[in-house]
Amino acid sequence: MLYFSCDYAEGCHPKVLEAINKTNMVSTPGYGQDDFCESAKEKIRKYINCPDADIYFLVGGTQTNQVVIDSMLSNYDGVVAAFTGHIAVHEAGAIEYSGHKVIALPAHEGKLDAAELKQMLEDHYADDSAEHMVNPGMVYISYPTEYGTLYSRQELEAISSICKEYEIPLFIDGARLAYGLAAQDDLTMADIAAYADVFYIGGTKVGALFGEAVVFTKGNTPKHMITQIKQHGALLAKGRLLGVQFGAMFTDNLYMEMGRHAIKQASIIRDDLKKKGYQLYMENPTNQIFVVMDNQALKSFGEKVAYGIWEKYDDSHTVIRIATSWATSDEAVSELKKIL
Amino acid sequence: MLYFSCDYAEGCHPKVLEAINKTNMVSTPGYGQDDFCESAKEKIRKYINCPDADIYFLVGGTQTNQVVIDSMLSNYDGVVAAFTGHIAVHEAGAIEYSGHKVIALPAHEGKLDAAELKQMLEDHYADDSAEHMVNPGMVYISYPTEYGTLYSRQELEAISSICKEYEIPLFIDGARLAYGLAAQDDLTMADIAAYADVFYIGGTKVGALFGEAVVFTKGNTPKHMITQIKQHGALLAKGRLLGVQFGAMFTDNLYMEMGRHAIKQASIIRDDLKKKGYQLYMENPTNQIFVVMDNQALKSFGEKVAYGIWEKYDDSHTVIRIATSWATSDEAVSELKKIL
Amino acid sequence: MLYFSCDYAEGCHPKVLEAINKTNMVSTPGYGQDDFCESAKEKIRKYINCPDADIYFLVGGTQTNQVVIDSMLSNYDGVVAAFTGHIAVHEAGAIEYSGHKVIALPAHEGKLDAAELKQMLEDHYADDSAEHMVNPGMVYISYPTEYGTLYSRQELEAISSICKEYEIPLFIDGARLAYGLAAQDDLTMADIAAYADVFYIGGTKVGALFGEAVVFTKGNTPKHMITQIKQHGALLAKGRLLGVQFGAMFTDNLYMEMGRHAIKQASIIRDDLKKKGYQLYMENPTNQIFVVMDNQALKSFGEKVAYGIWEKYDDSHTVIRIATSWATSDEAVSELKKIL
Amino acid sequence: MLYFSCDYAEGCHPKVLEAINKTNMVSTPGYGQDDFCESAKEKIRKYINCPDADIYFLVGGTQTNQVVIDSMLSNYDGVVAAFTGHIAVHEAGAIEYSGHKVIALPAHEGKLDAAELKQMLEDHYADDSAEHMVNPGMVYISYPTEYGTLYSRQELEAISSICKEYEIPLFIDGARLAYGLAAQDDLTMADIAAYADVFYIGGTKVGALFGEAVVFTKGNTPKHMITQIKQHGALLAKGRLLGVQFGAMFTDNLYMEMGRHAIKQASIIRDDLKKKGYQLYMENPTNQIFVVMDNQALKSFGEKVAYGIWEKYDDSHTVIRIATSWATSDEAVSELKKIL
Repeated sequence: MLYFSCDYAEGCHPKVLEAINKTNMVSTPGYGQDDFCESAKEKIRKYINCPDADIYFLVGGTQTNQVVIDSMLSNYDGVVAAFTGHIAVHEAGAIEYSGHKVIALPAHEGKLDAAELKQMLEDHYADDSAEHMVNPGMVYISYPTEYGTLYSRQELEAISSICKEYEIPLFIDGARLAYGLAAQDDLTMADIAAYADVFYIGGTKVGALFGEAVVFTKGNTPKHMITQIKQHGALLAKGRLLGVQFGAMFTDNLYMEMGRHAIKQASIIRDDLKKKGYQLYMENPTNQIFVVMDNQALKSFGEKVAYGIWEKYDDSHTVIRIATSWATSDEAVSELKKIL
Repeated sequence: MLYFSCDYAEGCHPKVLEAINKTNMVSTPGYGQDDFCESAKEKIRKYINCPDADIYFLVGGTQTNQVVIDSMLSNYDGVVAAFTGHIAVHEAGAIEYSGHKVIALPAHEGKLDAAELKQMLEDHYADDSAEHMVNPGMVYISYPTEYGTLYSRQELEAISSICKEYEIPLFIDGARLAYGLAAQDDLTMADIAAYADVFYIGGTKVGALFGEAVVFTKGNTPKHMITQIKQHGALLAKGRLLGVQFGAMFTDNLYMEMGRHAIKQASIIRDDLKKKGYQLYMENPTNQIFVVMDNQALKSFGEKVAYGIWEKYDDSHTVIRIATSWATSDEAVSELKKIL
Repeated sequence: MLYFSCDYAEGCHPKVLEAINKTNMVSTPGYGQDDFCESAKEKIRKYINCPDADIYFLVGGTQTNQVVIDSMLSNYDGVVAAFTGHIAVHEAGAIEYSGHKVIALPAHEGKLDAAELKQMLEDHYADDSAEHMVNPGMVYISYPTEYGTLYSRQELEAISSICKEYEIPLFIDGARLAYGLAAQDDLTMADIAAYADVFYIGGTKVGALFGEAVVFTKGNTPKHMITQIKQHGALLAKGRLLGVQFGAMFTDNLYMEMGRHAIKQASIIRDDLKKKGYQLYMENPTNQIFVVMDNQALKSFGEKVAYGIWEKYDDSHTVIRIATSWATSDEAVSELKKIL
Repeated sequence: MLYFSCDYAEGCHPKVLEAINKTNMVSTPGYGQDDFCESAKEKIRKYINCPDADIYFLVGGTQTNQVVIDSMLSNYDGVVAAFTGHIAVHEAGAIEYSGHKVIALPAHEGKLDAAELKQMLEDHYADDSAEHMVNPGMVYISYPTEYGTLYSRQELEAISSICKEYEIPLFIDGARLAYGLAAQDDLTMADIAAYADVFYIGGTKVGALFGEAVVFTKGNTPKHMITQIKQHGALLAKGRLLGVQFGAMFTDNLYMEMGRHAIKQASIIRDDLKKKGYQLYMENPTNQIFVVMDNQALKSFGEKVAYGIWEKYDDSHTVIRIATSWATSDEAVSELKKIL
């Protein structure tokens, strides 16, 4: 069976595993108060050119979104997101569970539109009933989006500047950050750090066993952040595991190398699909490929390839997801091409 | 100044006030454990032809929605509502505050569409990721809606039967129940009780100083309901005040009489508006009238009449709300007609 | 049946009722944005000698505690209280429901001890694990306490100064404030306002139909307070009712007059009890009297007098509460004395 | 530097690490829907002699307590625990954050007393105000306790039978379960499973990188458990890591072997301490040793040994914790003895 269903089907990159092995019997303080964490943070700060960034390592994506959003918002705040955003759909209501509304705006291939965002904020503050409504207290975007699309530099700039104007923090969910940056020539992680007030560097989907690095870029860390993380059940006892992994991923450019690998493999598959006349559900340049497949054909395809079901297209077709990752081998890509 | 801005601008109906005055110095147990409450509940049970209905009196609408929804849902549940529903817009996130997502569906003049509701539920349960999503645990509709429109008997029947099929309770928000029933010939409060699993009879907007009567109609009262009400800060110490008021409103048919009065006054105004060529924003038969007004004309109008601003229509027009109520006098209606 | 079970058994003081009657048909804006509220706030500001106090009217005590505490605390904060405090025992977990721990300290006849409070704060901040613990974010005391006892001026000063030292707001629950101040010669409501960062003036138990006036005394109102009140389901639509009632209670010194009346009646009963050799469970000077009663005697007593059961004393005795109020008539007191 | 500060200072047992290495590049479905998890669950079911046990793997202890307690309780419920319980002190209010009160009872060397528990439940249900109070909805005990003490079989039986009588689930926090069972001859994990309605097998502190196995033993899994786990941000994407680790730990009795190793080392140290006249703060048979140390002596001790600060004993003494674990080497124990 070929695995193309998701980008978290294997363990971790061999170099990350090597670091875990090498440090296994070292004794350290718990809860991330160790040197591995400190060193990994320093590497990230340098990489994003943000020497004062305040960094916290968490375990998974939904947890990270919940902790970041809840710790930055006040009771009366909600978070603005595209209605297709991960927090609006596939996190089992983790944001509402923590007391905050996800204020959903239209999505354009998964993206918020800056003009619509601005209009919404304008309307809100002009509304006589504003005090009876949830206050827009944060803007959430994912880069890449849930549909594998990317904001252009101009789009990021526009959204970031609206957030500044309204004094609302911009939070960029980078669960697949490496896959986005590897597919976009004119944007670096330092740019993401500059546009965002807080963002996270996804490890779970990019070569770590688990782990997300939350980066506060503007001296804006919420107070008692450790207490807040603990309160959400999100403080890893052996926090050093996160430091060790991110340390390895930010050594010799491994993180971006893994990103580029997945993009290369995705491009090969995407080209092959197009050549063979498959209909892409949505054009996007990252590691997730959304293809419209005939339900009949899907049966035999599914016997050889593990894929992701995305959504019903019509009565006889389904949108499926083919995802590459840091782990996708050349052999697997060749095999897939033969099957397609 | 003429007051047409809302239906809660005055105190209470003289007969309700009389009951409050008459019982003022009677000593009773607190928290609704008194005879006035018991007697009022009995009157309501008879009126809705539901002898086993379990009834709780609360103070206000948002409070009632929060308590009912939160006490009936489990952690993993959200509540399905039209995106224009009161709980989705104008309750400051009270539902999310209690941990639950408002799952917003399209609104058709404020109403949920039964077919869309069914499709959504079907899609949800067919979705491979359903367990990663908020479970639809209740359907919320308002009767009348926030736009003063009414579900037809057929529409209520359709939604109610979908809820039964999926074993999801149907909650009907009756903040303006009297104004809806007075405008719809073929529907009674007993019908509402039969269609709903839980509904509330609005007092605040229909002649009480305050108060909403929550009715569980199917032996489905959540456990430890008093504790849950208390926990939400919603247990009135002098609960007898709610019993006294609802007792008065359900004596000699006062509740529906107040409803009919408001509808009569609204019809007169609506007819006058149409005759004079005003554009109604939305046709509806209840006590709220939504009119598109020229911004220029609105200035002088506003000097004589208190109205509600609803929303911007275009650069030179605004949708306003003119609301009648149990308290709208014939003189006020005549005066308004002169001004229009 | 004589009613001495609680201080909220009747409606409201005749002068309060008169004000409600007189203003009943006046049209006002909703949600407390009316002149009655404004005028009542101004009267209170003057009475407490705090011209910049920011005042919000809420409906009931548990609601008020929940809204005040939740709006002033951050996620990571808990509220320190005596383990007998109302919020720690009899509010059905309303504080925990809003996400905050009640950090319980020993109670001394219902009161926090300043030295113990200071020690606890010192220990907390000296603790290596402080970040793994709930942060003490507020101190809550009730005046009078749940046992009818009063803090002396020195005790209040000590607690207030510890709160200042640690930069933690002091919240004084004044559900029975009039009954406390009427029993304590050397303390005024202005003193309460000076010691507290926020306090509330109880109406429900002192002559109003319902209503508590929350007073922020130090320019420390939480942001978007109206939104937060609404979000808790605590924003009364006809907010004017609260303004009308507090307006009446702060006219011609009615509030304190009601307080003094209850204390006078309580003193007569207390003296009579002592004379007749009854054992008081606790000495206190306010309107609640706690008496140890023989269970056998209690049966016939209970046929003539409604009293409050407080707690089991031993196998043959029970602690009961006899409460006077603004409404306790001289006749009732005489009758009670005959029965005792 | 010798590390005796805690039992989570190193990575994982070599055999666990070997299993992670061996399976690293295997592709599996996410979120614990893989064969490694299934196989590990089957091993646990056999080991605890509970073929129908329903098992969920989570990442850490506080997370597990929060998820288990919140998913099993209703809104109106709190959880009863010793006031020294982990959930009552060192979880940053994670339980209150999820809306539930920790109802604290006295602790006897960290343990609940069965008779006190029974009395509290009796009193609660006999209390006239019970509906105004938090309902006791679960009993939480830790085995071993936070002070390293153990409940005897009789004590467990007594608590378990009270829980059955009152129909309240008993939850046993087994963060250090192996260290408890290894120190108690007459009790097995199957006994724990029989006494508890739900318990967890701690991995983080007993040789795993991370991971706790929650076991529902009585067909009592909360509905939509995956959704609830996700909602708390606690669903690990690469859930197979938990299955792989628990699979290794429940192969060839590794889990209990690690437990016994730590107990053996602790006994050697404890004997040495006693021989040398050190004062133990509390007698206990498990892997945590609490010693009263002179503050002066502690300075030089701390230069060579990393220990845990527990609490102030008096002005010149401190209670410290010396913890052994699966990782404590014979050399480290010898070194420590030389230093003591």
